[in-house]
Amino acid sequence: MEQKEMRLDFNFMMREQIGDDSGLAAEDIQFLGGHIKRVHDELTAKRSSGEIAFFDLPYQDTGPIKSLAADIAATFDNFLLIGIGGSALGPVAIHNALHSPFYNQRVGKGGKARPRLYFLDNVDPDETAVLLEILDLKKTVIVVITKSGSTAETMASFLVLREAIRKTTGRIDPAQIIAITDPETGILRKMARQEGYRTLDIPGGVGGRFSVLTPVGLLSAAVSGVDIDEILSGAALMDRRCSNPDIWQNPAYMKGVLEYLFHTREGRNISVLMAYSEALGSIIEWYVQLWAESLGKKYGLDGRAVYAGQTPVKAIGATDQHSQIQLYMEGPHDKTITFLRVEEFNTEIPIPEAFEEMEGIGYLCGHTLNELIHAEQRATEVALARAGRPNCRIDIPAITPSVIGQLFYMFEVQTAFAGGLYKIDPFDQPGVEEGKRLTFGMMGRKGFEDKKREIEGIQKNSRYVI
Amino acid sequence: MEQKEMRLDFNFMMREQIGDDSGLAAEDIQFLGGHIKRVHDELTAKRSSGEIAFFDLPYQDTGPIKSLAADIAATFDNFLLIGIGGSALGPVAIHNALHSPFYNQRVGKGGKARPRLYFLDNVDPDETAVLLEILDLKKTVIVVITKSGSTAETMASFLVLREAIRKTTGRIDPAQIIAITDPETGILRKMARQEGYRTLDIPGGVGGRFSVLTPVGLLSAAVSGVDIDEILSGAALMDRRCSNPDIWQNPAYMKGVLEYLFHTREGRNISVLMAYSEALGSIIEWYVQLWAESLGKKYGLDGRAVYAGQTPVKAIGATDQHSQIQLYMEGPHDKTITFLRVEEFNTEIPIPEAFEEMEGIGYLCGHTLNELIHAEQRATEVALARAGRPNCRIDIPAITPSVIGQLFYMFEVQTAFAGGLYKIDPFDQPGVEEGKRLTFGMMGRKGFEDKKREIEGIQKNSRYVI
Repeated sequence: MEQKEMRLDFNFMMREQIGDDSGLAAEDIQFLGGHIKRVHDELTAKRSSGEIAFFDLPYQDTGPIKSLAADIAATFDNFLLIGIGGSALGPVAIHNALHSPFYNQRVGKGGKARPRLYFLDNVDPDETAVLLEILDLKKTVIVVITKSGSTAETMASFLVLREAIRKTTGRIDPAQIIAITDPETGILRKMARQEGYRTLDIPGGVGGRFSVLTPVGLLSAAVSGVDIDEILSGAALMDRRCSNPDIWQNPAYMKGVLEYLFHTREGRNISVLMAYSEALGSIIEWYVQLWAESLGKKYGLDGRAVYAGQTPVKAIGATDQHSQIQLYMEGPHDKTITFLRVEEFNTEIPIPEAFEEMEGIGYLCGHTLNELIHAEQRATEVALARAGRPNCRIDIPAITPSVIGQLFYMFEVQTAFAGGLYKIDPFDQPGVEEGKRLTFGMMGRKGFEDKKREIEGIQKNSRYVI
Repeated sequence: MEQKEMRLDFNFMMREQIGDDSGLAAEDIQFLGGHIKRVHDELTAKRSSGEIAFFDLPYQDTGPIKSLAADIAATFDNFLLIGIGGSALGPVAIHNALHSPFYNQRVGKGGKARPRLYFLDNVDPDETAVLLEILDLKKTVIVVITKSGSTAETMASFLVLREAIRKTTGRIDPAQIIAITDPETGILRKMARQEGYRTLDIPGGVGGRFSVLTPVGLLSAAVSGVDIDEILSGAALMDRRCSNPDIWQNPAYMKGVLEYLFHTREGRNISVLMAYSEALGSIIEWYVQLWAESLGKKYGLDGRAVYAGQTPVKAIGATDQHSQIQLYMEGPHDKTITFLRVEEFNTEIPIPEAFEEMEGIGYLCGHTLNELIHAEQRATEVALARAGRPNCRIDIPAITPSVIGQLFYMFEVQTAFAGGLYKIDPFDQPGVEEGKRLTFGMMGRKGFEDKKREIEGIQKNSRYVI
């Protein structure tokens, strides 16, 4: 089957369209040619050596995932995924893109006879309590996901759920728990061996925020009836486009270069991703982590302080035209905006002709909501361009598994590529370690007593509390 | 009953705590004394004259709202609110703060025998289709909200729902439709008169994004069983604190000054609001509109171009420690961070002691999720402060109607006050007009033919589509 492809239209980032003050010249991009070649060669080498493993995920054997998913779907009424960060954002993004918001009530798009899906990605006590109340734990499979196997929030939530199962059913049936973690190391792997849980592996060389196309994202998708091979076909299609060293043919490289240039040369430190589609909202949240955590780095690879990283911002059209567009149109020249536009929705909703004679509303009658949301997207990009606000658009033919796979893969390559341009490591996250150590101290973990004392020793000025 | 009060702790924005390079000195704030007095006097005068009417909302008569709500709750199974921007963000914020995410399934906090609540705030065809599928329209009341009475998205959705009711029940029963709009003018008011809908007023002088404490936010709250008088008591309590001209006693003024100084003097053009609570997520989305649309202005009151406005960003802890904190810790020094911390959740969830002997996880055992989320919040603010990243914290004793009212009111005063400091008009939104005109053109509205031609005339370079 021929796959429909997404397209990147960046006319409104270029001088010809939005003027010399705001737009880039084709020469600005050509001028980076040496850097582009260097980063391309680095990525290609690291792909060959297996150091960057997400590149090869489109070609994996999905047999074990599908087989486990079929077993789960035949056995359980509820599927609860416990994870945080990359271990939740990917699966949630796939689910919300391809299913109705009322999937669990079996209304709208999504497999009607399949398990209900729940995601627990925080240690909020109230959220956890209500989940315990709604789930029939006798008919629930718990899928716990952590690459390292020791993520505090995930493991705390898992211990709570495991105990709740024990109290409800009188025992821990290992068939009720599935662990997705490092193939060899970590506490979760150890527990799984000890207690006999079934497991799936997160391959080495694939970090959390690049793990959506591993069992992390694919198991819940398969359980809910998504054709995960089609997701991977889409990713493979995008791999072919994004392996092209010619930046004028490579949407991921081009998007990375555009953001990099607008950030470093024009001071645009904010990157908005605005989808004209409710279903794509969670893909933006997935992207926010990818872009923020990969590029937000203090040190370059040469050890010098660089303080890299745009701040990614989520928006949803048309809704946020009534929230954020005023700022985007008139505020500081500090951002780029990328639209996601869906050409064909699943449904077409006509606006009835009831009031076509009424001034100020009649013009809507006889059109469709589809025409309206498309007109609003187009109007917004044109208005922004006119105001000298650089923006581009990703055209999505329809929200299908293939297109979702294309999007994931493109954004991942774009992020890895941008990391190369900034000359930082897009695959680490050293900045979160101090917070973890302080948390360990406050939670009384052995070896972190000094951190506890540090926090307790902070003297605050009462004048600064009102 | 004594109301618990929220507190603002801004120690980690001050030099004594985070160092001379990153923090403000008390003198920086004192130095603004003349401006602070000027803005206070302006706001006080505009309050007295009725020009800024949101100030007086805590003292309104809620009788008509409660009476209509009681009638709705006794008559209908489903309550569908149609609105966009300020006409949806406020009601959604109250609902999600005070009710369980499974309210519609009658699980967790929220009135069990009350109507299910649905919110339609976009013209996404797929979202609309699934809502039409799940709603039993015979038992549904439609509440349509637009201040102007002609908001394109809201009126289009309303026409779709009105027609769906007509098809389902064979007629338009006016008792099934409630309009919340301007007391006198606008298309929705006209339709309500013509068709006999019940109505509630959005008072003159209260703009959409300042309307949460009008029937816009209060009707759905009352229908779902929230004590709306307690929300207003909280707002009144905050009014007393925020009328104080002494900035060292006034949390709204202080917060406005802090953001203003960090933006204009330190170039921090991003303002993050990060709640360690899932329930408060929608209050952040409400705040994002308030801050972005009020302050994002090209022109000052004197007509000069100023390009004002920070970009507000939503984050949720502990989850986004695994998404955005890396960037906040190590990325550009371009943001302030405000935490929302809930002292007492509704529930306490113990972490069982099952694995207390296991290295790397045992430290969690015997604690609670409450302790963990609190430790993470504290660890994050301390780690950020150590890295020279200014942050402050709003301490919320518990998520109650009173506290929600306090928060809304404080943020509104803070926003109005910051507008005064920037010397812009925080109550208009001229930047969205061009997008509306272009949309009218594309939808074929009479009088906007030139806009249609403008858009059709744009020639794009095919080289910039890949």
